[in-house]
Amino acid sequence: MPIVTIKITGDEESPSTESKKQLISKITNVIGEVLHKNTHNLCVIIEEVPMDSYGIGGVTVRELRRRK
Amino acid sequence: MPIVTIKITGDEESPSTESKKQLISKITNVIGEVLHKNTHNLCVIIEEVPMDSYGIGGVTVRELRRRK
Amino acid sequence: MPIVTIKITGDEESPSTESKKQLISKITNVIGEVLHKNTHNLCVIIEEVPMDSYGIGGVTVRELRRRK
Amino acid sequence: MPIVTIKITGDEESPSTESKKQLISKITNVIGEVLHKNTHNLCVIIEEVPMDSYGIGGVTVRELRRRK
Amino acid sequence: MPIVTIKITGDEESPSTESKKQLISKITNVIGEVLHKNTHNLCVIIEEVPMDSYGIGGVTVRELRRRK
Amino acid sequence: MPIVTIKITGDEESPSTESKKQLISKITNVIGEVLHKNTHNLCVIIEEVPMDSYGIGGVTVRELRRRK
Repeated sequence: MPIVTIKITGDEESPSTESKKQLISKITNVIGEVLHKNTHNLCVIIEEVPMDSYGIGGVTVRELRRRK
Repeated sequence: MPIVTIKITGDEESPSTESKKQLISKITNVIGEVLHKNTHNLCVIIEEVPMDSYGIGGVTVRELRRRK
Repeated sequence: MPIVTIKITGDEESPSTESKKQLISKITNVIGEVLHKNTHNLCVIIEEVPMDSYGIGGVTVRELRRRK
Repeated sequence: MPIVTIKITGDEESPSTESKKQLISKITNVIGEVLHKNTHNLCVIIEEVPMDSYGIGGVTVRELRRRK
Repeated sequence: MPIVTIKITGDEESPSTESKKQLISKITNVIGEVLHKNTHNLCVIIEEVPMDSYGIGGVTVRELRRRK
Repeated sequence: MPIVTIKITGDEESPSTESKKQLISKITNVIGEVLHKNTHNLCVIIEEVPMDSYGIGGVTVRELRRRK
């Protein structure tokens, strides 16, 4: 029973409820197809990380967005 | 020093503070007994996942509860 | 830049290298499509858990497979 | 459906298969009792971390054991 | 491309935005220096755990602070 | 008591034991300085991910290295 965790930026970049539904459904299907596994109990967890708590290359995502 | 992480659904299904105390205490005891380890610094972290961000079998927990 | 972690059973149920490639590629595409994000740096990590270390419903996967 | 991850030191301190069975069974029971949840699909994952890759207070567990 | 996750207590002990910036910047530098890796896409994620959901030695951090 | 997890590529890119010691020591110091926390029980865990199980931008690290 695979367990999938997706970490993405939250706050203004938080995905909509509909996007979360699609991520959960489509990723479950991909794993079922590729691994030929029963996905009945496959778990997908989406974790939103605040933009001040997510750093890339030493800089927070908040700061990176400001620089754009 | 073992580290335990428990992911459970939050929102309306969020456990009470008292339940969290019991989970932390009882799980620490179980690990101490089974592994014969000093549990003085054993960590237990409880992470609550919103029902729209937790998918089982391709469907969000929110939707699964609605279908019940 | 989303980070995806997939935990699956290892040992005899370990996915092939080709399956891992497909999981990484297809899941990256799904996230790109659904979230309209640049996936250039999107990370997918596959973690294989030994069947004696993976429990479902209080029983190891090893034991569950034996019972089948 | 709660997901529990237990990180412990591996190598010489790796728990026996029997200990893992007990951890999985007892922790599943604790969560079932405390949260009054159906534990049929509750996942417990035990991850062993090599003693050179596990640091406490800035020192590897390997070194800490040597100092004892 | 290394991925670093830091779990710390939140609530009243939540680090300031400035502290998070420093953690992200300094930890990225340490990894770049020690591993001689390009840190351009290195990820640092800070996760704050509520004091009622973080247990040490079988007791919540909330309770430990109260006892001090 | 902060918990730090570092995921890096393993196999041929696996860091030396000495590098792990430095990562553990230096990252513990950084967190102690920035957060003014006692680091006596701070945990740093280094997890090595096989290059076939680590994808960036939809391609395994193994394949990315081959293309270089």
